[in-house]
Amino acid sequence: MTVPVIRVAPSAANRAVSLLRTIQFTHPPNCPCHTNPGHHHHNQRQQISLANNVRRHLATPTDPSQQKEYAFEMAASSIRFGPGATKEVGMDFKNLGAKRVCIVTDTNVAQLDAMKQATEGLAREGVEFTVFDKVRTEPKDSSIKEAIAFAKPYNPDAFLAVGGGSVIDTAKLMNLYTVFHDADFLDFVNAPLGKGLPVTKPLKPLVAVPTTAGTGSETTGTAIFDLVSKKAKTGVAHRALKPTLGICDPLNTRTMPSAVHASSGLDVLCHSLESYTAIPYYERKPRPTNPINRPAYQGANPISDIFSLNALRSTVKYLPRAVRDPEDFEAQEQMLLAATLAGVGFGNAGVHLCHGMSYPISGQNPGYKHAGYNVDHPIIPHGVSVAVTAPAVFRFTAASNPDRHLEAAEAFGVDISNVKRESAGEVLGEAIAKFLVSLGDQPRGLKELGFSSADIDGLVEGTIPQKRVLMLAPSLSEELNAEKEELRTLFENSLEY
Amino acid sequence: MTVPVIRVAPSAANRAVSLLRTIQFTHPPNCPCHTNPGHHHHNQRQQISLANNVRRHLATPTDPSQQKEYAFEMAASSIRFGPGATKEVGMDFKNLGAKRVCIVTDTNVAQLDAMKQATEGLAREGVEFTVFDKVRTEPKDSSIKEAIAFAKPYNPDAFLAVGGGSVIDTAKLMNLYTVFHDADFLDFVNAPLGKGLPVTKPLKPLVAVPTTAGTGSETTGTAIFDLVSKKAKTGVAHRALKPTLGICDPLNTRTMPSAVHASSGLDVLCHSLESYTAIPYYERKPRPTNPINRPAYQGANPISDIFSLNALRSTVKYLPRAVRDPEDFEAQEQMLLAATLAGVGFGNAGVHLCHGMSYPISGQNPGYKHAGYNVDHPIIPHGVSVAVTAPAVFRFTAASNPDRHLEAAEAFGVDISNVKRESAGEVLGEAIAKFLVSLGDQPRGLKELGFSSADIDGLVEGTIPQKRVLMLAPSLSEELNAEKEELRTLFENSLEY
Repeated sequence: MTVPVIRVAPSAANRAVSLLRTIQFTHPPNCPCHTNPGHHHHNQRQQISLANNVRRHLATPTDPSQQKEYAFEMAASSIRFGPGATKEVGMDFKNLGAKRVCIVTDTNVAQLDAMKQATEGLAREGVEFTVFDKVRTEPKDSSIKEAIAFAKPYNPDAFLAVGGGSVIDTAKLMNLYTVFHDADFLDFVNAPLGKGLPVTKPLKPLVAVPTTAGTGSETTGTAIFDLVSKKAKTGVAHRALKPTLGICDPLNTRTMPSAVHASSGLDVLCHSLESYTAIPYYERKPRPTNPINRPAYQGANPISDIFSLNALRSTVKYLPRAVRDPEDFEAQEQMLLAATLAGVGFGNAGVHLCHGMSYPISGQNPGYKHAGYNVDHPIIPHGVSVAVTAPAVFRFTAASNPDRHLEAAEAFGVDISNVKRESAGEVLGEAIAKFLVSLGDQPRGLKELGFSSADIDGLVEGTIPQKRVLMLAPSLSEELNAEKEELRTLFENSLEY
Repeated sequence: MTVPVIRVAPSAANRAVSLLRTIQFTHPPNCPCHTNPGHHHHNQRQQISLANNVRRHLATPTDPSQQKEYAFEMAASSIRFGPGATKEVGMDFKNLGAKRVCIVTDTNVAQLDAMKQATEGLAREGVEFTVFDKVRTEPKDSSIKEAIAFAKPYNPDAFLAVGGGSVIDTAKLMNLYTVFHDADFLDFVNAPLGKGLPVTKPLKPLVAVPTTAGTGSETTGTAIFDLVSKKAKTGVAHRALKPTLGICDPLNTRTMPSAVHASSGLDVLCHSLESYTAIPYYERKPRPTNPINRPAYQGANPISDIFSLNALRSTVKYLPRAVRDPEDFEAQEQMLLAATLAGVGFGNAGVHLCHGMSYPISGQNPGYKHAGYNVDHPIIPHGVSVAVTAPAVFRFTAASNPDRHLEAAEAFGVDISNVKRESAGEVLGEAIAKFLVSLGDQPRGLKELGFSSADIDGLVEGTIPQKRVLMLAPSLSEELNAEKEELRTLFENSLEY
């Protein structure tokens, strides 16, 4: 093949660009410069993405369906962070001009000081409100519809969510379907299960006050629930759903039991690891023809990277302390901040395999009840179900970008100076497994959750509908049979670690 | 003194908290644990701020005027980044439902491809627009008022700014005073020169397309201008002014001459250095009684820190390349990203001495005309006027937080492993001076701008009204005469470096 090999030394980027102008219509589509984003500069991922921008801009295929993404968009809620900040929320609604606020919570949180502060704040400012406290943990479409049916006749001009991710997600959907009063429930639900329509009108103001340090839902435009008829976790994901303001008040997470600290912290761990290792945004296709169709889960990008890596480092440092010592308020505060930072990271980059595989794990629970959860039914907490496959997942994905996986391993305290790039997956997988074991009370694989080899086909089938996150998974095949085979291997390798 | 000395080992934070519960009403106000936030954990600034949160929460004075801040709030525009993204802007306005767009630009930018892409985009979508192209570089109140007078009768439902910081700032104020149609111009101008009223209504959508990589104005709620009657730079600063969306299109900054790359890059350098070293948010007082009065320039905080430090590292790495080679598009893209990141950093933390002192330097220009600027009048570009005092400023501020200043020095490539904390200022000042010299064509002090010792009184007097930034300056005295003396010394030490 006679295509010129372009070696872009930093000082010669301009020459490479001129060269590309010349060759853009002549080189074959499998030129290594274009299929392997790490080809030119190893160890400088952020630099790569932007250098590639220039090349991609000049070498865009003319067939729109083959065009990859060329831009990324970062959006996040405003975040207020401070112990005691919940009590300001009444003034916020008054400042927003709100006159009828729908407060969304669950029966547990309704008893906590966070709700007391919020309702007293609204009352003090004379802002009328009503309380919906029937949010279901791990919402189903039926529980969401019940919540929407509550909100519609009240016709609030603003929403306040006080609770964990289930509460905040439910509030987002109450807001969406109150504004789009006549929409069919599936209109905005992620394709292929729903129609995945874009949100074309601004929603009402929503203030979110998280009481757990995990989902980061206070910063994202994502709302997740079980679509029971399809036996699948899905949701709605659009920037327009993101709260106006997230109030992160560390006084509100002190009520979490140690086991909840642990599992919600593992959600943060996987948000940061998955978003940092998701395919880069410029490998996603097709390029949207209208910016309103650019997904929030758009792949790793230079701004999400900053949030994800920072959240990962904090989680490694503070989660063990927050789990071990219920009075280590500093570690709890740091985990609340890390959860929010990771929320901005994955809220704009996306998650991939751990999350995609976690939904059938939770949904097909053979009867496991996690220690420390005071419920009367079997439960695999979300954070546990995402983390249990993490050692196997990152062993598998490392080949796509060894440098990035080594950086993640370094965040766990591994000395990577003499680690070969081929060993990145092994080293990161081992570091994650050690971290999970050190937290205590974590299942060492799917077997301890009660799964066996016989369950794997079902788990694979339950993962396949998670297109929106699987498309961001590095190293995963696009062809369905190959993809299933890879998922099967990942579940098998997750039976024990 | 019999107050117990509290040594908070990480694992004993909980015990310290219990102890503080006991002693909070008994220890004297000058207990070193409370006046020196770095007392307990050296080298772990982020950790400190949150650990101190707990202590501050438990030891709040009851006199409101003495209460320091306890929360911070991060707000930033959505950012879309990609080469060619400008052409999407017509669809953005259509998606927003806009029907009459006021485009704001200046006569130079009006000729550039950025404007062509923007106007063609709007036309393609059938969105009506008008163009105001009379923005003055370094706007004055009179030029802003002229722009507002243009916008009011057109009554746009959205604004589009295409240009540098002057254009974007002018557009913010056109938006503000079109919405607050009958407000007096000084109502929202920063106190003490204006009334500093909070912005109590949402403004119209504003999309900002920067054509320089410097001000970061596309992400901030700040607009700066000369208030001629008071001979002072001032402005309006409120989160409500921030653009809805910033479109950072690296194709738009390729038109910048090398000298403009350099001076706008020095603005980024100082944004990141000043915001990273500003007083921490929890040292600011008084605590606002309503969150709407929490300033955007609130002091360094754990989220702004991430942006500021990242932008600083990028600037050190890419600015010299962007200045040296006009075809180094990768370095230019990285600087555009760094400018935006620094914008989020300083837009939520603030700037301090370099910016405060720069306004009289530019305003009292004895006749200096910067090389590479094709204008027919003397000019000290904003970036040059902020950077010229930087070596002296950070020598002075280092005592307030040596660890943070050492980290900044490390970003310049200094090996700090054997540097004593007492030398932090010397080392950082020296690193900045070397960096400025290496860029070329930079004045080595105020003398080269034509200032002499005789001008210093005037420069000090011109700095004093910059309360909003001076209040964030570490190490600066609160008492007026001492403050003037310190500023005098800083200007003297900036005569030559």
